[in-house]
Amino acid sequence: MTDLLKKIGRIQNAPENYVCDALIAEVNVDGMNAARRSFLRKSFAAATAAVGSGAAVAAADHPGYGGEEIILTLPKHSTSLGHPVAYAPYGMPSKYEANLQRRESPGLTKRRESGVAFTPLQGLFGIITPSGLHFERHHAGWHDIDPASHRLMINGLVAEPKIYTVGDLMRLPSVSRMHFIECGANTAMDWGGPSVPSVQYTHGMLACSEFTGVPLSLLLDDCGIDRKNAKFILAEGSDGASLTRTIPIERALDDVMVAWGMNGEMLRPENGYPLRLVVPGAQGVSWVKWLRRIEVGDAPYATREESTQYVDLMPDGLLRQYSLIQECKSVITTPSGGQRLLDKGFYNITGLAWSGRGKISRVDVSTDGGHNWQAARMESPVLSKCLTRFNFDWRWDGKTSILQSRAIDETGYVQPKINELRAVRGNRSVYHNNAIQSWRVETSGEVINVQIS
Amino acid sequence: MTDLLKKIGRIQNAPENYVCDALIAEVNVDGMNAARRSFLRKSFAAATAAVGSGAAVAAADHPGYGGEEIILTLPKHSTSLGHPVAYAPYGMPSKYEANLQRRESPGLTKRRESGVAFTPLQGLFGIITPSGLHFERHHAGWHDIDPASHRLMINGLVAEPKIYTVGDLMRLPSVSRMHFIECGANTAMDWGGPSVPSVQYTHGMLACSEFTGVPLSLLLDDCGIDRKNAKFILAEGSDGASLTRTIPIERALDDVMVAWGMNGEMLRPENGYPLRLVVPGAQGVSWVKWLRRIEVGDAPYATREESTQYVDLMPDGLLRQYSLIQECKSVITTPSGGQRLLDKGFYNITGLAWSGRGKISRVDVSTDGGHNWQAARMESPVLSKCLTRFNFDWRWDGKTSILQSRAIDETGYVQPKINELRAVRGNRSVYHNNAIQSWRVETSGEVINVQIS
Repeated sequence: MTDLLKKIGRIQNAPENYVCDALIAEVNVDGMNAARRSFLRKSFAAATAAVGSGAAVAAADHPGYGGEEIILTLPKHSTSLGHPVAYAPYGMPSKYEANLQRRESPGLTKRRESGVAFTPLQGLFGIITPSGLHFERHHAGWHDIDPASHRLMINGLVAEPKIYTVGDLMRLPSVSRMHFIECGANTAMDWGGPSVPSVQYTHGMLACSEFTGVPLSLLLDDCGIDRKNAKFILAEGSDGASLTRTIPIERALDDVMVAWGMNGEMLRPENGYPLRLVVPGAQGVSWVKWLRRIEVGDAPYATREESTQYVDLMPDGLLRQYSLIQECKSVITTPSGGQRLLDKGFYNITGLAWSGRGKISRVDVSTDGGHNWQAARMESPVLSKCLTRFNFDWRWDGKTSILQSRAIDETGYVQPKINELRAVRGNRSVYHNNAIQSWRVETSGEVINVQIS
Repeated sequence: MTDLLKKIGRIQNAPENYVCDALIAEVNVDGMNAARRSFLRKSFAAATAAVGSGAAVAAADHPGYGGEEIILTLPKHSTSLGHPVAYAPYGMPSKYEANLQRRESPGLTKRRESGVAFTPLQGLFGIITPSGLHFERHHAGWHDIDPASHRLMINGLVAEPKIYTVGDLMRLPSVSRMHFIECGANTAMDWGGPSVPSVQYTHGMLACSEFTGVPLSLLLDDCGIDRKNAKFILAEGSDGASLTRTIPIERALDDVMVAWGMNGEMLRPENGYPLRLVVPGAQGVSWVKWLRRIEVGDAPYATREESTQYVDLMPDGLLRQYSLIQECKSVITTPSGGQRLLDKGFYNITGLAWSGRGKISRVDVSTDGGHNWQAARMESPVLSKCLTRFNFDWRWDGKTSILQSRAIDETGYVQPKINELRAVRGNRSVYHNNAIQSWRVETSGEVINVQIS
């Protein structure tokens, strides 16, 4: 490994992306190594001398890249009192990270209230999505609903219809589990070919959180569900769109929960505060936000969002309906479209894999457009219907390379190539594109969204 | 279970606590059930009638508790467009949650720059701590350090001392893992008896996050560590306190990492941005924030924070030094001190368990002050050196009850009673109080911090 690392490559993000990479843009690339060696030599001597007095200074100095001069003064933050505790009773990211944002794809929808804001996957680590960067997809915008006035009603094929306050639900036996949520339209824009530049826009309708709530099965039992005749439920949101979705009863009684918690705290308003349905493995639209009603019925409901929308137009002209499950998928988040490799040398290829049907069993990475594959390292824990982070050691030789990842889930399902997917589904679909993503690294170091048959 | 739930109890938090419980305070307790039944009957009929037209209304209505009148108008958020996507490019909690804050314990330290702000455990769910509510413990306050100018130096018993930029580190092979962090002084104030009212103050120097970074072992290898003579490392922060701690080399080469990521994004400034040491299982002070230097040596360094501070005064008058590991511990977070049970009936007892030595193997709960114990349900995943969330069904009969939890880790270590701990450690300690916590539920429903021998 140390040998592989001898020369660590550097990445420059697109301007709108991850700000911490500003530390690359400002340095003189050619002069860097010489300057660093010099800095190291001088400051190391100074620091070693200072260790005895408990005031090692060098590592925090400002080296003045590109020259030989080293300024051995301590930075202000090492010589002054900083902010007190609870300066921010609710903390925020560093000001240097302000550019890492949810971003819209202009013109994607007619109104911003029914638009999309994408998660900046290129700047994130691990599997937990910071709640402040969780993607948004609304049908009539979001409100900050007063939980004291919010109610959940359960009606239909139950012995005793009931209305619960948020407090009622929060005092029931709860469960906490980590799950991914992906919009069915994630990667939609690439059905017809590469159309957007970066992983934020190709795959950013994806997030992963720890959800806490009450199992829906417990509530249905509490209302005396008619188990003989109940075949489906309808979940209804309280937003202006009254968004509604049908869910088969087997799934509703399995791992679905009525959630109030996300990443340890209450749901964020734009993610359904105070209540949303969590339907592990299912597309995001089924995770009804601002949930106000569950109806138990004996037939699917064919609502707007499952008849004219969120259906897959197949090659024979028919619509595939009620396609609920997000199939196995993965994507490399770094290096990815819009970034630029500044050097030959070592890179940590990293990305995410997930499956709506269970755990990820393996992730392979190719750096030559799918001719050769090698297993990536998967970070633990590997959880069912949850993101799995993978990492892969790579040394870039400066030549054109095509980076791909391919996930396999515990059912044995292998993430398909785009042409394999098109052979079955045609190219008029909008939803459920889980094809292998290809990023081409040009000899210039630029990384571009491409499609490889 | 459904039978157990027949009557769901209600909890009122202390005024400074969890705001969502405002939904309790405003209702007329006596009138509630009658009003709900009436509301249910009327609104269910209305909603059922409305279902066909796709405009079910009742569940989101404002019922007017205490009377029979039901107003069947839809709330504004169901009849209007809300905020557009990316209205907040970086999102925040609901305004109704503004009271859930990190809070100081006034007078605990002379200056707020060397103080503590506690995590509001009583209002959190699952195991992930929202980064905005991560506890704070500083020695000279916090700064928002420019990552472009920050450096990490590794020196001492290495073949080639090196200085790394943050970018250098971030492009190395990374790992992501979930771990708890607990200040060695957590629960310190209760060594001499119950002193603070709520779990936020008794146990709130505790958090759990997914950390991403590079294994320290890789960096030490990269610098050519002298494996024959290296026995300890010194980790040094770049804050005004130049905080320094010694760590044995076996641990430094095990699962310690130099981290930049926390819960998917860069560390928060008050938690060490841009670099902190992650020392799984160790007390928080060893997780050096704003990390600028690692020195490899052959003897412990006996720095200020491990000789005059963070030592345990034993009954024989000697100081226990270098007590690094946080032993197995647990606490019930709801119901907990400062809350009030408003009814007899069902309650979900919930809490957290953790061990610096590995996984939690079992959590027991007692509701009678330790005479009888029953196993709690542990939420998955159960990870090493990570929080584990537990839940326990309980029906309160209105009598005085003493709630306790007792964790057992995979080494077989059993969380001690306070008198067992005092028998070994005396009562002049400040740090490392991992005793069983007792909350007494009075007949009035008030929950009080008590100690049971």
